[in-house]
Amino acid sequence: MPEPVRIGLLGRGTVGGAFAELLEARAGAVEAATGRRPEIVGTLTRAEGDFGAILERSDAIVELIGGTDPARGFVVEALRAGRPVVTANKQLLAQHGEELFDVAREAGVQLRFEAAVAGAIPIVRAIQESFGVTEIAKVFGIVNGTTNFILSEMAATGAPYEEVLAHAQELGYAEADPIDDVTGADAAAKMAILTRLAFHTEVTLGEVAYEGIEQVKPDDLAYAKELGLSLKLLGVAERRDGGVSVRVFPCFLYGGHPLAPVEGPFNAVMVEAPEITEVTMSGPGAGGTQTASAVLGDLVSILNGDAPVHETRERLPLVADVASSFYLHLEVADRPGVLAQIAQVLGDKEVSVKSVVQRGTGEDARLVMVIHECLESRFAEAREAIDRLDVLRSPPRAIRVIEEEFV
Amino acid sequence: MPEPVRIGLLGRGTVGGAFAELLEARAGAVEAATGRRPEIVGTLTRAEGDFGAILERSDAIVELIGGTDPARGFVVEALRAGRPVVTANKQLLAQHGEELFDVAREAGVQLRFEAAVAGAIPIVRAIQESFGVTEIAKVFGIVNGTTNFILSEMAATGAPYEEVLAHAQELGYAEADPIDDVTGADAAAKMAILTRLAFHTEVTLGEVAYEGIEQVKPDDLAYAKELGLSLKLLGVAERRDGGVSVRVFPCFLYGGHPLAPVEGPFNAVMVEAPEITEVTMSGPGAGGTQTASAVLGDLVSILNGDAPVHETRERLPLVADVASSFYLHLEVADRPGVLAQIAQVLGDKEVSVKSVVQRGTGEDARLVMVIHECLESRFAEAREAIDRLDVLRSPPRAIRVIEEEFV
Repeated sequence: MPEPVRIGLLGRGTVGGAFAELLEARAGAVEAATGRRPEIVGTLTRAEGDFGAILERSDAIVELIGGTDPARGFVVEALRAGRPVVTANKQLLAQHGEELFDVAREAGVQLRFEAAVAGAIPIVRAIQESFGVTEIAKVFGIVNGTTNFILSEMAATGAPYEEVLAHAQELGYAEADPIDDVTGADAAAKMAILTRLAFHTEVTLGEVAYEGIEQVKPDDLAYAKELGLSLKLLGVAERRDGGVSVRVFPCFLYGGHPLAPVEGPFNAVMVEAPEITEVTMSGPGAGGTQTASAVLGDLVSILNGDAPVHETRERLPLVADVASSFYLHLEVADRPGVLAQIAQVLGDKEVSVKSVVQRGTGEDARLVMVIHECLESRFAEAREAIDRLDVLRSPPRAIRVIEEEFV
Repeated sequence: MPEPVRIGLLGRGTVGGAFAELLEARAGAVEAATGRRPEIVGTLTRAEGDFGAILERSDAIVELIGGTDPARGFVVEALRAGRPVVTANKQLLAQHGEELFDVAREAGVQLRFEAAVAGAIPIVRAIQESFGVTEIAKVFGIVNGTTNFILSEMAATGAPYEEVLAHAQELGYAEADPIDDVTGADAAAKMAILTRLAFHTEVTLGEVAYEGIEQVKPDDLAYAKELGLSLKLLGVAERRDGGVSVRVFPCFLYGGHPLAPVEGPFNAVMVEAPEITEVTMSGPGAGGTQTASAVLGDLVSILNGDAPVHETRERLPLVADVASSFYLHLEVADRPGVLAQIAQVLGDKEVSVKSVVQRGTGEDARLVMVIHECLESRFAEAREAIDRLDVLRSPPRAIRVIEEEFV
C-alpha cells in the first residue's frame, strides 16, 4: 500500500474545520483519484501546534488561517522547504501575491488558491489554465456574496440598507464587522488577484479603486425597477487604451445581462475575449463547505501533478423511471364536464395538477396544465388514459417542466 | 533557445483552420506560459498528408477530423506511441471513451477533450479537476446550441419549427442536415461524456435516452409564456436510487431557474453536489474560434504538465478615466423650466440622456435619468455643475449602469 499523503493544516476555524471534515469524508475518492490516501498529520491553531514541527512531517501545507500575518511567513517558509501550498487567503494573495509566486517558482512547487476568489466557482483555474493563453479583454462580476445578498434583499423588500444589513448579520450572510464587505474592500482584493492572473500584469491592492454599497437608497432601487435595472456590486478589470482598468462599484444592469439574475449570496464572474466570446461562471461565493471543496480540488490537482486520465471507478446501474413534472396540452371538446372527466383520470392515477389554463371555445377549446412531479411511468399511464377519452380532439402533448426553485 | 513543440494537426476544416490560425496568433503567449514555442509540423487532410510521417515528427497530436473513423485509429496509435492527444471529437469520446482512456493510461500520456462538450466553456476541466473528488449529485444543462437557438427564436417570434430551422440554417446556426442536433442525438453524446466524468462510471451512448425538439409547437411556447416558463433542450445526468439516470429531453423551466435566461446558440451546464451547492457555467457552445480556443487551452495544459505558477509578463499601465453609463437621481424644485435647465448643463458638457422618469410634485419632485456612456471625468463635471444649480434640493446621486446588450 502506498504511503499516505501527509497534510499540514494551518487554521481550524469555519473553513479549516469544514476542510478537515470534507477531507475525511472524501479520503477514498482522493485515493482513487491520486493513488494516495490523504491524512492530516498536524493542525496549527492559535492555542496549539508548532509550525516548524508540522512542516517537518508534512508533504503539503493547507493554509486556512486568513489575514497576512503570520500566514505570509508560514506560506513562504513552506514553499522554500519544497512543500506545495493550498490557501484560501485572498488578502495574502492580493497583498503579497508577487512575492509568493516568485518564491513558488524558485522552489519549483505549486501554490494554488482557487478558494481565495468566488468560493466554489473554479474561476482561478479557468483563467490560469483553460484561458491561460487567451487574450482576455475583460474579467468582471459579482465577487462578494454579502453585498449581493443585501442588494437583492433591498430590491425585493424595499427596506433600507441598515435594516437589511442587520438582517443579513442575523442570517450569517454578513459578519459582525461588515466593513470590508460593504465598502467594496473585499471585492477589491479579489479583483487584484483576478487582474494579475487574467492580464499577466502586476497590480497592487492600492491600485484598485473601490466604492461600496452604504450609500444605496431604497429609492434608487425602486426607480431602477421601473427602468428594468437591477443593482449589483461589480468588480471590473479590463484592457483600456493599452493599459488596464480595475475598479469595484455598485452598478445597474439591464434585465438581459447574464449577471442580472444572480441573486442572494451567490457570486458570478464573466470572462470576455475575442476567441471565447464570453464565458460566465456562477455559484456560491462563500460558505465553509463550499470553500473547503475548492481547497480540496486544489490539493488533488497538486497530488496529481499531471492532469488525471479518466478512470471508471464503479458501474452504476442505469435508472430508467424517474419522477418529473409535466406540462400537458389537451385539445378538448367544448362541453360541460370535460375538465371534471380529465381531473378524474388524473386523480385515479394519483397524478396531481399544479396549475390549469383553459382557453378558447368550440373547435379551439384547450386545457393546458402543469402537473406536479410524479414517476414518469405513472404520468404515461394517465396520459394514455386521457388519450382514450372521447372528449379529446387530438392526442395529448406533454413536455417536462423543472419546477424546483433556486437560490 | 529551447526546441519548439512540434504539433501534428489532423483535420483542417472549420475548427482545424481556426486552431492553426489561433496557434499562430498566440504562439508568443504559449511560449510565455510553457517555455516552448508551438509549431505545426504536419497537417493531415483528406487530400494530403501521411499520418505515420506526421506522428513520427510530432511531440503532440491535435485531432480535429471528427467522426469515429479514421479518427479512432489515429488517436489510439498516437497515444500508444507516447504522444499526448487533444481532440474536440464528441462522437469519438462518447462511443470509444473507455478504450481511449485505457490506452492513454497504459501509455502514461494525457488525452484531453475540453472542446468535445460545450465549446469554450471549461466544463470538462471543472468536472475532472476542480470537482474531481466531489460527490456530484447531478450534471445538467443546455449542451446543444442549434436547438437552443431554434427554441429561443420560436419563443421570441411565435414562428413554427420548420420556419425557424430554415432561418437557423441560413444563419449558420444549424447544419444543412440538422438531424443529429434536432433529435437530441448530439446532446446525448455530450451527456454520455459528462456522465462518465462526473460519476466515474461506464455509460455507453446507447444507454442515453433522448428526445428532440421536432414536435414542439408554437402553441406550447405561447401557453408556456403565460405560465412563466421557457423551453430548453436539457441533458440531465443524476444519481437516482443508487444508480444513475441520463436523458435528453425538451423541458420547461420556471423564470427563476439559472438556465432560463440562456438564449440563442449559447450552452450552459450546472453541477450540483452537497459540498458545492450548485455551480453554473455558460458560454458559446460552438464556433470555430471558440472551439479552437478550448483545444489550445488543453494543449497548453499538456505542455505545462504541472499547473503553471503565475508569472508577470508585462507591466500594464493603470487607466483611471474610463467611459461609463450612469443612473442619475435628482431631487429638484417643482417649477417650470427645471428639466430644461438641467438638460442645458448636460448638453454643455456633451453628456447625453438615454431615458428620463419624472416623478412626484412639490417637496417630492424628482428626476431620474439614464445617461449614455461618456468619460467618467466628463460626467463628474456635469454632475458638479448640476449640483451648483439652485433648483437642486439635495446633492445628485449617481450609480453606474451597464447598458450593453448581450447574446
